[in-house]
Amino acid sequence: MGSITINKDLLRERQSCTFNVLELTHLWDGGPEKTKERKELEKFFLDDPELQEKIPSEYLSHKEKYQEALRRSCLLFKKIKEWSDTTGCGSQMDTFQNILGGMLGSAILPDGVPFALNYVMFLPTVMGQGTMQQQAYWVSRAWNCEIMCTYAQTELGHGTFIRGLETTATYDPSTEEFVFNSPTLTSYKWWPGGLGHTCNYAVVVAQLYTKGQCHGIHPFIVQLRDEETHMPLPGIKIGEIGSKLGMNTINNGYLGFENVRIPRENMLMKNSKVLPDGTYVNSPSDKLTYGTMIFVRVALVRGIAAAYLSKALTIATRYSALRKQGEIKPGAGETQILEYRTQQHKLFPPMAMCFAMRCSADWLWDIYNSVTAELDRGDLERLPELHAMACCLKAVCTKDSAKAIEVCRLATGGHGYMNSSNFPSTYGMVTAAETYEGENTVLLLQTARFLVKAWQQARSGGNLTETVEYLKTMPLQPLSLWVNSLQHLGIAFKRVAAGNIETCATSIERRILVGVAPEDAWNEVSIQLAKAAETHCRAFMMQIFINFATSAQVSPELKKVLIELCELYGTYFLLDNLGDFFMYAGLRSSDVPSIQEWMETLLHKIRPNAVGIVDGFDISDAVLRSALGAYDGNVYERLFAEANKSPLNAEPVDESFHKYLKPFLKSNL
Amino acid sequence: MGSITINKDLLRERQSCTFNVLELTHLWDGGPEKTKERKELEKFFLDDPELQEKIPSEYLSHKEKYQEALRRSCLLFKKIKEWSDTTGCGSQMDTFQNILGGMLGSAILPDGVPFALNYVMFLPTVMGQGTMQQQAYWVSRAWNCEIMCTYAQTELGHGTFIRGLETTATYDPSTEEFVFNSPTLTSYKWWPGGLGHTCNYAVVVAQLYTKGQCHGIHPFIVQLRDEETHMPLPGIKIGEIGSKLGMNTINNGYLGFENVRIPRENMLMKNSKVLPDGTYVNSPSDKLTYGTMIFVRVALVRGIAAAYLSKALTIATRYSALRKQGEIKPGAGETQILEYRTQQHKLFPPMAMCFAMRCSADWLWDIYNSVTAELDRGDLERLPELHAMACCLKAVCTKDSAKAIEVCRLATGGHGYMNSSNFPSTYGMVTAAETYEGENTVLLLQTARFLVKAWQQARSGGNLTETVEYLKTMPLQPLSLWVNSLQHLGIAFKRVAAGNIETCATSIERRILVGVAPEDAWNEVSIQLAKAAETHCRAFMMQIFINFATSAQVSPELKKVLIELCELYGTYFLLDNLGDFFMYAGLRSSDVPSIQEWMETLLHKIRPNAVGIVDGFDISDAVLRSALGAYDGNVYERLFAEANKSPLNAEPVDESFHKYLKPFLKSNL
Repeated sequence: MGSITINKDLLRERQSCTFNVLELTHLWDGGPEKTKERKELEKFFLDDPELQEKIPSEYLSHKEKYQEALRRSCLLFKKIKEWSDTTGCGSQMDTFQNILGGMLGSAILPDGVPFALNYVMFLPTVMGQGTMQQQAYWVSRAWNCEIMCTYAQTELGHGTFIRGLETTATYDPSTEEFVFNSPTLTSYKWWPGGLGHTCNYAVVVAQLYTKGQCHGIHPFIVQLRDEETHMPLPGIKIGEIGSKLGMNTINNGYLGFENVRIPRENMLMKNSKVLPDGTYVNSPSDKLTYGTMIFVRVALVRGIAAAYLSKALTIATRYSALRKQGEIKPGAGETQILEYRTQQHKLFPPMAMCFAMRCSADWLWDIYNSVTAELDRGDLERLPELHAMACCLKAVCTKDSAKAIEVCRLATGGHGYMNSSNFPSTYGMVTAAETYEGENTVLLLQTARFLVKAWQQARSGGNLTETVEYLKTMPLQPLSLWVNSLQHLGIAFKRVAAGNIETCATSIERRILVGVAPEDAWNEVSIQLAKAAETHCRAFMMQIFINFATSAQVSPELKKVLIELCELYGTYFLLDNLGDFFMYAGLRSSDVPSIQEWMETLLHKIRPNAVGIVDGFDISDAVLRSALGAYDGNVYERLFAEANKSPLNAEPVDESFHKYLKPFLKSNL
Repeated sequence: MGSITINKDLLRERQSCTFNVLELTHLWDGGPEKTKERKELEKFFLDDPELQEKIPSEYLSHKEKYQEALRRSCLLFKKIKEWSDTTGCGSQMDTFQNILGGMLGSAILPDGVPFALNYVMFLPTVMGQGTMQQQAYWVSRAWNCEIMCTYAQTELGHGTFIRGLETTATYDPSTEEFVFNSPTLTSYKWWPGGLGHTCNYAVVVAQLYTKGQCHGIHPFIVQLRDEETHMPLPGIKIGEIGSKLGMNTINNGYLGFENVRIPRENMLMKNSKVLPDGTYVNSPSDKLTYGTMIFVRVALVRGIAAAYLSKALTIATRYSALRKQGEIKPGAGETQILEYRTQQHKLFPPMAMCFAMRCSADWLWDIYNSVTAELDRGDLERLPELHAMACCLKAVCTKDSAKAIEVCRLATGGHGYMNSSNFPSTYGMVTAAETYEGENTVLLLQTARFLVKAWQQARSGGNLTETVEYLKTMPLQPLSLWVNSLQHLGIAFKRVAAGNIETCATSIERRILVGVAPEDAWNEVSIQLAKAAETHCRAFMMQIFINFATSAQVSPELKKVLIELCELYGTYFLLDNLGDFFMYAGLRSSDVPSIQEWMETLLHKIRPNAVGIVDGFDISDAVLRSALGAYDGNVYERLFAEANKSPLNAEPVDESFHKYLKPFLKSNL
């Protein structure tokens, strides 16, 4: 493309930005040093030509995609080792997190890393549930990539309801082995990443039988393939599950067992145990195994929901600043589509969501670390709250993000439909997280269970933890007249949440009073329960965002932008759920026009800073991978260049013309 | 899979259905004869082994996908000819419509037909805008597939705003030719289906210059490739635009011109003309060219939005009836997920939408035909209403459908993410229609323009056409107390629409009064204008559905189901837009619990008929193409069989192990 010139409209946008973009980048990264580290890491990995794709993967066959991903994965993990050798061992874990859960990995293996579960699931599980001896052996082997491991829990017939898993591990005291079987087709393991053709070991979750009794599900380490030949071991039926909406290089697999034997020592025995004679020794606490699951959900809020949304926003906002279409005033020349109020209404609320997700993710990460420390001291008090918040934040953030990414794509018109926009792959990655690691509706209902309990506690005068404290005060305060202020928004969102929770709780009670079984009552009210959990999550995110925006130690210029985004978050979701505010927050019809105007004024205020805000996310072109969103704004040149990477364009006439089309056109139909 | 047994849960569902499924099928098809015709057509095409795919296309490379689609297209169109020869010529047009716009085509070429635009755009354009002579020549050549043609309008830089197109056609009287040029990169044609490597002719829309003056955009027939060699003609720069979210076998292309000359006679001259000396003769009426555009939008409502949604619903509903997960009551055994109220709330409202879309599509088709006949008589009176309704119905139905398809997919958990579910391709097809043939927001704003004008007419006592008549009566009738009835729902939806339109109109007037330019005022109010158009469309669909359900000549059992679905449509969208009903329809907080209960009771009532309803759509397995949705419900067997079609599963160890993975694992990192 020759020397790079920046698109003039983008240049003008950048010149008229009212705040210091670098200050936002530092805030977003968590400080100037973090920015520096990130950029060094990006340079080290993304400048390596070997890690770059020759042909865009969407032109390859399914098999070629996998092979190319495997090639790059091997190079990538060697390079991680190289990086940690030069920078000191301590940073290796951070590097893995950046690669596997962050933006950097998505630049190199945009459709997923087949080695991911070795680090994200296998190692944490062994560390959390293995004995010291088991940890010493397996962690070092997996960490050094002598073996490649995955985590096999979900089966064809069971995902969410893990008690229903069917794979059996039956203890045979005569040989001191567990015998694995897949008694039904539905008991086949299905979905584990890397299981198809990549991994040779897995943690397998199975129903433990010993002395004729079932003791429920437990984790075991099972060898799947020969370390030398990679051939599946006898009795192991294994393969990949086939192509998917996205994430096609993760190599999700299936796994069946026919009398597969493993040594007793391969059961992870930090908690429960089976003694050599087959005696089962119980776990001191189930709750201790929650860790990995919550950890992954915490990581999803930041690493998937917020991160991928920030990508989509960068692409759509830059494109909207340079794309011109139609005239607002006839004859006045074509308009940047970002000038259209409807376009601003599509893009700016998701920007606000992005910030709200980041603040919430930071809060969740902090409380996760505190609660984990408390758990180690045997203090389980805050675990239910952590679990409830991890559930609803995962559900709401992945849903908001997936929806907003599609809004961004559609806001770029047809061009967003092209893979070279990178929207399709971005959406594919995020929407997957709406169902994995806990299906979103199920998660919301878990949060709802916590909320209804908290509401009952509040009514009976019990103590409440931080996130539900409002249930105590909300119903007591009289409804005040509506005021357009952040503070009032914060209160109104809590009133809506409290109102929804109360409606559900009383509705359940009413049903039980007339003789409905409590479980049926729960099911009957579940539509509103899921909604109540969502409004609780929204109220939480609103408050966290308010705290962040009002207390951030930044320049007045940046603070102004943060406050505007925070107000937009509130007004947008208020107008989107107006009925709730009428019902529970004392809103009247006559208040609505002023809130609508407030929201529209915010769009107008954010408009000149829109490009500055997404520039502040500081996502490099190599990470963005989008013809529509690159920093220089040379959209049309890039779209054209990407089109010409299609192997079909290598020749003017495709061979299929002679083979099929010509005979057809000449056949005198 | 051996002899087919029907899943027991599905069998039980079918036995407990309260209405005659075949009666619904006949209603859905438009009569028993239409059902019979459809089934004969399906049998003729879908039983042909040559038209079936050997390897699922998602495993092929991009190039192989195109080649395979081209192979099947040639066979398919030969077969259409064969069909029409045996059944009589008259039905050929119907057959094409079924193949190109309907379910049958999606069974054979699920990612799009590269020949589609020859029939959907080229032929209608030539018939609508060519002279008799031009029609005689070009229609017969294209109809008989001597040439393969497309329609090239959209450019890299311009889609919606067609006046901004940049391709030039400059008349040269010395040779009586038009000279085509692409003055900029953004002037390249971009998107036309089949343009990449398939077509050799196209209608090209370009700015007409003659005698030094520009006369705006006009259509011309341009030869692109040599009929014998298929080589691009001199000055023609052509190729495909690259891979996309879906529809990857449509072969969308790009096209640039460098002094490409075509004879004067290739300008389509039914309306405007250029005489041999270069004199431009004006068109009698612009409006006459609206036809094709409206026709395609009409077809989208039925053939894409409603049809593909009915597929997604069939898949998700059957799966939900046999998938068991979790226990509502502990120890009572696992529950069909369709028993969960939240699941019913995901699936049943889209069923209602599907019916509402079909009724609306039928209405639109009828009025389209009447207005076209009126146009031929020079009567343009109802054209604006047709245009306004085609715009908003296209926008609302494609949006509702795309959203609901994703809800269906997510309701099937992780398994819906697999391509073998057929959800991804179904979504890809429908979401494309959210931006093509008029971007949805732009279309809603076109409807809004009609509505604001109608509102002004209503206020000044003018006459109003059918769909906006309510603007005259609504504000005059006093608000009555809320009643849970269909009739009241119909009125409430109109009140909401009228309220939103009035809010917009007065808001625009207020702004103009204080000195805002009318165009700026329009833009400032456009968020609410788009919403107003949507509420108008919703009110229209509600009323059409009410009329249909209450007047359908069917058995009482089926009528009951239709009424339930109709009530669900109303209550669902009411609760989803509660604020509007508080503001404009006299709803009070105390009314809401009874509406919520009404809606939930409807879910409960529809539950036993859910499988019956989707069975009534009568979509054959070959059309459905879904491991999750087949009639027999053997989901897990099919998922497994589909997985094993992956070429990666052909061998136990992929070659990439030896090439990349083994050296890596043995490298002692």
